Amino acid sequence: MDVFQCIRTRRTVREFTAEPVPDAVIHKILQAARWAPSSSNTQPWHFIVVKEPATIAELGRICTQGAFIGQAPAAIAIVMDNARRAQLDAGRALQQMELTAWSEGLGTCFVGIRGEQQDAVKALLGIPEELELVTVLPFGYRILREPGTGTPRKPMSEITHGERFGQRLTFS
Amino acid sequence: MDVFQCIRTRRTVREFTAEPVPDAVIHKILQAARWAPSSSNTQPWHFIVVKEPATIAELGRICTQGAFIGQAPAAIAIVMDNARRAQLDAGRALQQMELTAWSEGLGTCFVGIRGEQQDAVKALLGIPEELELVTVLPFGYRILREPGTGTPRKPMSEITHGERFGQRLTFS
Repeated sequence: MDVFQCIRTRRTVREFTAEPVPDAVIHKILQAARWAPSSSNTQPWHFIVVKEPATIAELGRICTQGAFIGQAPAAIAIVMDNARRAQLDAGRALQQMELTAWSEGLGTCFVGIRGEQQDAVKALLGIPEELELVTVLPFGYRILREPGTGTPRKPMSEITHGERFGQRLTFS
Repeated sequence: MDVFQCIRTRRTVREFTAEPVPDAVIHKILQAARWAPSSSNTQPWHFIVVKEPATIAELGRICTQGAFIGQAPAAIAIVMDNARRAQLDAGRALQQMELTAWSEGLGTCFVGIRGEQQDAVKALLGIPEELELVTVLPFGYRILREPGTGTPRKPMSEITHGERFGQRLTFS
């Protein structure tokens, strides 16, 4: 799939078919993360692939604002290790994973993990206390339906500026 | 360009030709940012496109660890506004911009802006004090040369785990 078409058509997906995701596809998603750029090429990340139904179900119970994890065939936890720009670098790897997943017919939806949920997920997945758990990314094949128009975006003029903040960006 | 090929071949680029980047290409890069996912679809971002040679040169003087900005034909500052997950969401938009730029024959290199450089760049670009300046992303056409092998990446086995942290990820 063309990269811009992938970016432009990608939607957040919270419902998946029960079809298992082949290992080759999971491997490709992990490669996309592995090849993401990171600050000073420190690659300060770890990716935990979860497929065990009991663990997936428990993630769904813990992450109350993203209970749909419990219905996903697989999920990847993103964990940062002593990273200077943990969230920014995680976001870059995350986005490469999301795009690759979309191009393979999968859907993803980032799930934030708040407060005491952090401790519960870390205990469940055996993540050392000193590491930073950024998110768990559930994924699975998309349920086919009419393509939606996508969540609305702010108009370009509201988020872009020319030369200085507050100056209108004009194109010749 | 195929999305995975784009992810796999993208390299960080710090040298650019003098060729100006057409407005249509800059617009496409901004669209890639605009369509990035963000926490609760808050889209808490602003993008300042800088092309004025005097401003570009001043950015190069301020950002001492990324002085190559001064030789770029254009740059986009990423600014976050009251964002719950500023760095993570910025990273997602940033990566969509980097991939789109690469697919258009451009190169990019994220430049971090530290300490008092923050104040100087904010003053130069008129960014309100309360907003969070994440990075300035210089870009331009790549100087053609033999494709490199890319910066080394850690082996897959070092950054991936199966079911629990520390357990080897095996593929059937």
